[in-house]
Amino acid sequence: MAQEFLLSPQCSLSSSAPDRSDPARSGCPHRCSRRGSLDAPPRSATERRPAWTGPSARSRPNLVPVCGKITSRIAGQSFQKSRQHHRARLNVLRTETEFVSWLRAQVPSGARGLEIGIGDDGAIVEVRRGHKLVLKADMSIEGVHFTRRVHSPRSVGHRALARSLSDVAAMGGTPRFALTSLAISRVATRAWLRELYAGMLALAKQFAVILVGGDTAVVAGKTVLDVMVAGEVKRGMELRRSGARPGDQIYVSGRLGLSALGLRLLESGRRPSPQDAGAIRAHLYPEPRCALGRYLSRQRLASALIDISDGLSTDLAHLCESSGVGARVRADLIPGPEFPTGHVPNSLDLALHGGEDYELLFTVPPGKTGQVPVRFRDLPLHRIGEIRRSKGVALVRPDGTATPLGPGGYDHFSK
Amino acid sequence: MAQEFLLSPQCSLSSSAPDRSDPARSGCPHRCSRRGSLDAPPRSATERRPAWTGPSARSRPNLVPVCGKITSRIAGQSFQKSRQHHRARLNVLRTETEFVSWLRAQVPSGARGLEIGIGDDGAIVEVRRGHKLVLKADMSIEGVHFTRRVHSPRSVGHRALARSLSDVAAMGGTPRFALTSLAISRVATRAWLRELYAGMLALAKQFAVILVGGDTAVVAGKTVLDVMVAGEVKRGMELRRSGARPGDQIYVSGRLGLSALGLRLLESGRRPSPQDAGAIRAHLYPEPRCALGRYLSRQRLASALIDISDGLSTDLAHLCESSGVGARVRADLIPGPEFPTGHVPNSLDLALHGGEDYELLFTVPPGKTGQVPVRFRDLPLHRIGEIRRSKGVALVRPDGTATPLGPGGYDHFSK
Repeated sequence: MAQEFLLSPQCSLSSSAPDRSDPARSGCPHRCSRRGSLDAPPRSATERRPAWTGPSARSRPNLVPVCGKITSRIAGQSFQKSRQHHRARLNVLRTETEFVSWLRAQVPSGARGLEIGIGDDGAIVEVRRGHKLVLKADMSIEGVHFTRRVHSPRSVGHRALARSLSDVAAMGGTPRFALTSLAISRVATRAWLRELYAGMLALAKQFAVILVGGDTAVVAGKTVLDVMVAGEVKRGMELRRSGARPGDQIYVSGRLGLSALGLRLLESGRRPSPQDAGAIRAHLYPEPRCALGRYLSRQRLASALIDISDGLSTDLAHLCESSGVGARVRADLIPGPEFPTGHVPNSLDLALHGGEDYELLFTVPPGKTGQVPVRFRDLPLHRIGEIRRSKGVALVRPDGTATPLGPGGYDHFSK
Repeated sequence: MAQEFLLSPQCSLSSSAPDRSDPARSGCPHRCSRRGSLDAPPRSATERRPAWTGPSARSRPNLVPVCGKITSRIAGQSFQKSRQHHRARLNVLRTETEFVSWLRAQVPSGARGLEIGIGDDGAIVEVRRGHKLVLKADMSIEGVHFTRRVHSPRSVGHRALARSLSDVAAMGGTPRFALTSLAISRVATRAWLRELYAGMLALAKQFAVILVGGDTAVVAGKTVLDVMVAGEVKRGMELRRSGARPGDQIYVSGRLGLSALGLRLLESGRRPSPQDAGAIRAHLYPEPRCALGRYLSRQRLASALIDISDGLSTDLAHLCESSGVGARVRADLIPGPEFPTGHVPNSLDLALHGGEDYELLFTVPPGKTGQVPVRFRDLPLHRIGEIRRSKGVALVRPDGTATPLGPGGYDHFSK
């Protein structure tokens, strides 16, 4: 199987019988031109379009490209597009070869540990001696994890990679290599695709993560992006969810609920004010806490670690369940969104259940709490409660009342 | 981010206002039962269904479960299903917790090199000292790589993993760990999902590959399955596409075009005869050639190696391009499908362009051809041509005429 990046099975030419007199040309029977780079401006409408010549898709018997129309025979679906519509899309996505060339040019070669990247059957990489591998995959699905109305393609790419990086951070590891599989919607434009990778590769560069391969195909439905990250962690230094013990103090990094607030602001459709910027940035461009994860691992400060991707209430429950313990958290200590105008309805709810903050939640044995800094670099660390022997998580309000805190509870955005 | 396996956001109960009086219960505001295993028989229609309680999806603000209906607000789509339809589906997919428990029970624990598998933020694994990592991801998309009419779920799972394993084989590596990301269609049944994993895990067991994690979500569209494999290859023993030199002899394993023939037979809808079985099995349950890949690597026989996933014509072109050489292959030496009844139209075309055979294509320096066995275990190895200095691939017919062989040419299944 090729390390393939297969693009749209499109051909703009008419559906007349193909000329097969020269089987040597590597491409469409219409002898379409295949020149041009992904960054080249769209060709004029009168110019011949490059045919779909991606070898991978051609050999897939159940996607049958008939020039001028695309018929998925087995599925019993027939997609026949007007030439005009076809051309409009063709300006955007060209051939697999072009796309792979473009992508390879975006990815730094000769990086440490990288032997074979995009272009062979698989990638060959090396992890440092004495290190273990951290493996994680996360999907980003259009209509579930992002929408085109709210999320720019750059943000989609950033967030897709950030999710996996955050998981590596939550093991105390260092992300090294990424594979990205992209089932891209037929309606995606060339610019959208380029921006998606720009967002992903900018974050990859920031964390010295190398994109070593993946798989790309065009689908009739929604875009699905799967990012798999291979990281490394020094042997014996990995952090788990299961190490929390009664008496350990519970900490979180950063502020919680910012991402959910940012989404709410973006959804509202109103023009964002300067004070909205933090929340919106937190939602669109979350920052994985890899440095903090490594710090906690190396200093042997944390007894258990998890990232808060599903909201504090849910991820604390995960941590407690894995560790076989319970917890008490104090509502007044939970760092909710800071919002100068004071108009944050249910800021505690956002902080408890918002999700997608990608902050770290960790526990510290009582004897080590003195070593936990108030800030790690620019990131505030807040103590919010304590691990208890009795199961379940309790939320203690400022008036002293304690109520059980269920994971997620109900959906705050359906109200 | 949790090592999550998030299932369908379904709740069969009415859309009345949820009871939020007890936030401690970990689940649906309707206090639905969450008992039962994935293998449990469907409950009666009158019994209360488990609500969608997957914490991961709840915290995703843009998928809003309102009990009795599911509304994707941001996407502007509203899916409202009748209770009857809802119930029918609920018999099949239950909660994330159930699914993860079921899946963990299917995966052997304590395997060599596996430290943390499904259930933490990421997996922690170890590769043997002196080995490099082989990384590869491959997607299997409904309507592109498989259809429900032709492919059983067991075959879908088998084929999805086989694609990635074959790539590791083509590097001379040994697959060790797999991550599977599954965006599963809303219409998939519980039995379908179970069979999918059964097919994947049976193949994984055969190759001693451990499923260490992944991500699962439910989508409105087609099912997308992404399988990433991390393998290992002894340092300096990896095989590339780029090592072929003029004079090297070209070999292929097995018979080519069998998978394409099998698909054609399956599509025909007629009852398969006993002699169809080989081709149908080759299509539905292809066998990755990992042992042969390792043998070629260890014996240092092959100068270049690629797997034939896209058809001989395409993958030979890839190998030649990477190596900066050309090739001549003899039509009469190419092992096409064996079909006792003799009714294989265009068997050479199937062998040249069929694809999805997952056999290996390799080149051997002239001085080593004597060491190439006629069979490797039960697998025949055929010499089919020679690498040439001049670019391009030529097909030599039995009458001596040589014609250029383009990758794929035209689609053989649209005729």
